[in-house]
Amino acid sequence: MATNPVENASETTPALNTPSTTPTPLTLLGLGAMGTALAGAWLAAGHPLTVWNRTAARAEGLAARGAAVAATAAEAVAANRLVVVCLLDDASVPAALDGVDLTGKDLVNLVTSTPAQARARAAWAEERGARYLDGGIMAVPPMIGVPATGAYVFYSGSSELFEEHGATLAVPAGTRYVGADAGYAALHDVALLSGMYGMFAGIAHAFALVRGEDVAPSELAPLLGGWLAAMSGSVARTAEQLESGDYTQGVVSNLAMQVAGRQTLLSTAEEQGVSAELLEPYFRLMERRLEIGGGEEDLTGVVDLLRR
Amino acid sequence: MATNPVENASETTPALNTPSTTPTPLTLLGLGAMGTALAGAWLAAGHPLTVWNRTAARAEGLAARGAAVAATAAEAVAANRLVVVCLLDDASVPAALDGVDLTGKDLVNLVTSTPAQARARAAWAEERGARYLDGGIMAVPPMIGVPATGAYVFYSGSSELFEEHGATLAVPAGTRYVGADAGYAALHDVALLSGMYGMFAGIAHAFALVRGEDVAPSELAPLLGGWLAAMSGSVARTAEQLESGDYTQGVVSNLAMQVAGRQTLLSTAEEQGVSAELLEPYFRLMERRLEIGGGEEDLTGVVDLLRR
Ligand SMILES: NC(=O)c1ccc[n+]([C@@H]2O[C@H](COP(=O)([O-])OP(=O)(O)OC[C@H]3O[C@@H](n4cnc5c(N)ncnc54)[C@H](OP(=O)(O)O)[C@@H]3O)[C@@H](O)[C@H]2O)c1
Ligand SMILES: NC(=O)c1ccc[n+]([C@@H]2O[C@H](COP(=O)([O-])OP(=O)(O)OC[C@H]3O[C@@H](n4cnc5c(N)ncnc54)[C@H](OP(=O)(O)O)[C@@H]3O)[C@@H](O)[C@H]2O)c1
Repeated sequence: MATNPVENASETTPALNTPSTTPTPLTLLGLGAMGTALAGAWLAAGHPLTVWNRTAARAEGLAARGAAVAATAAEAVAANRLVVVCLLDDASVPAALDGVDLTGKDLVNLVTSTPAQARARAAWAEERGARYLDGGIMAVPPMIGVPATGAYVFYSGSSELFEEHGATLAVPAGTRYVGADAGYAALHDVALLSGMYGMFAGIAHAFALVRGEDVAPSELAPLLGGWLAAMSGSVARTAEQLESGDYTQGVVSNLAMQVAGRQTLLSTAEEQGVSAELLEPYFRLMERRLEIGGGEEDLTGVVDLLRR
Repeated sequence: MATNPVENASETTPALNTPSTTPTPLTLLGLGAMGTALAGAWLAAGHPLTVWNRTAARAEGLAARGAAVAATAAEAVAANRLVVVCLLDDASVPAALDGVDLTGKDLVNLVTSTPAQARARAAWAEERGARYLDGGIMAVPPMIGVPATGAYVFYSGSSELFEEHGATLAVPAGTRYVGADAGYAALHDVALLSGMYGMFAGIAHAFALVRGEDVAPSELAPLLGGWLAAMSGSVARTAEQLESGDYTQGVVSNLAMQVAGRQTLLSTAEEQGVSAELLEPYFRLMERRLEIGGGEEDLTGVVDLLRR
């Protein structure tokens, strides 16, 4: 279990953190779609903000709203201790910051990356004398700075940095600190996005089944959405089973029944003229687990078959 | 859009239908896990119930609770006008009922089947002089007869039958009438289950990513479950886009961005030693849609690529 050294700050929602002191000044590098949204949220909350973007024109609107615009990344970094980076990808971080003095800085890297990239970037920052926090943003720009959207950012790395700047970081979106390992924010981010693409695949298959029938997509949508939301609760049982190692614990429909039942799904796809390519890989893993004796289990054994 | 001739009965929750008259007597064929749960719900609600099961011993507990046990399927069918069938599969229906007089009966078939099987079974029943309603149960036995579980059954086929017996059918679980086409209950049932298996595939991948890391499955579970539940709301936008034919409508992250972003997911799987076989087919379809010019669209174009 990832340790959480920052009890009260570990889970926050935006706009609930009314700082008792003057809003912390900070620097933001990168004014793409996400960076611009973040900048707007900090300005609206009264944080003195210095911004820099490779293409200077993108800073104009923010300058009008009170941001200080730096001419170079070095100048922007020099302006404040807290430096948030929201560039395109991991490679753009050294592209913008190599040669810039990071000594004594608190670097918060919101660039989407893999866990290994985040760990390497943490080492890179620490070698340059900075404290490092990595972030994975679970939101799209229109959700930033808007209360009650459920938007949040995973953070991992320096717990001291998170403790010190948690309130400032909580201004644009909620925060979830998930451990000292700088790779864990990315790991959580990617785990959730991967789960989502699986669900999107199922949703695409479901809509494809009713195409050409007298069933309106908008009639199916609330039924499908409600069902998926309800069934997403199964993650709790899966987690318990993974932790106990007993995949028969609390089983409702066992693997043998579900492998038998998949035929109705495959036959229906065939009848409706829909390729089952999005479902077949999962069914194949269910079958493999059944073959090696998991008939009385839940579907959890599939997780083990994915590990190389 | 499936027409709904039964305005008020089209959506009900169990145990809310207090019949103003004597509970309707009915017959139930099949006392497996699901049949036994259904029987218990009708008995508890005071419905005179006649049951039959191929293996007679399975009726004993229900007899003790007041069910009349028929010696043959023919005798059970003769006892009541409303006959509910909950046998294993489509083939077991004629196995149990061929040669039995169905004239004037109201046959409700809850056996899981494909849309084509349901339509053929409807024709089979109508040839034998019965009205026919097909059902697809969106629940497991422990949810049957328990209020507020969200359990329900899709129904399609004879709207007259549904109108007449809707209150009785609503006793074990909620009801959703989805059209006169007898295949539509199965179509809705399979669409929702297919979506669910896609989501399960994503969930398996997500848990596999954190295996071997210092991240407890029970720590990931609520984050993953909450994220999936939130993202399941995207079905509404997908439905609107399918109906308008404009897949760029209301796009937040376009296909080009998402195809670029998938590399972080694939690289993370690689780093974590996890096979990406459950995500790759969906990513391939995203790429194909991008190749044919869908870069500004949402992910909805994948639905069309699934149709043969
Ligand atoms: N947008 C979302 O929905 C979303 C959601 C979650 C996470 N994120 C993550 O947030 C980060 C930023 O996303 P975004 O949507 O703001 O991207 P974007 O709109 O494409 O903006 C990219 C930014 O990176 C800058 N940049 C790219 N390469 C650079 C380089 N070599 N040197 C200096 N600057 C460079 C660009 O500067 P120029 O203006 O000069 O091109 C621009 O400011 C990404 O890591 C993304 O994965 C985005
Ligand atoms: N259980 C669930 O979670 C669930 C959820 C949704 C839908 N359903 C559907 O509900 C239906 C029943 O499921 P179940 O869980 O109750 O199945 P089950 O426990 O396996 O029971 C199967 C029933 O079918 C009977 N049967 C099988 N072949 C027969 C034949 N040739 N002639 C006569 N009777 C025959 C069995 O009789 P014997 O006792 O003599 O073997 C038994 O009563 C299935 O279509 C299933 O897909 C079940």
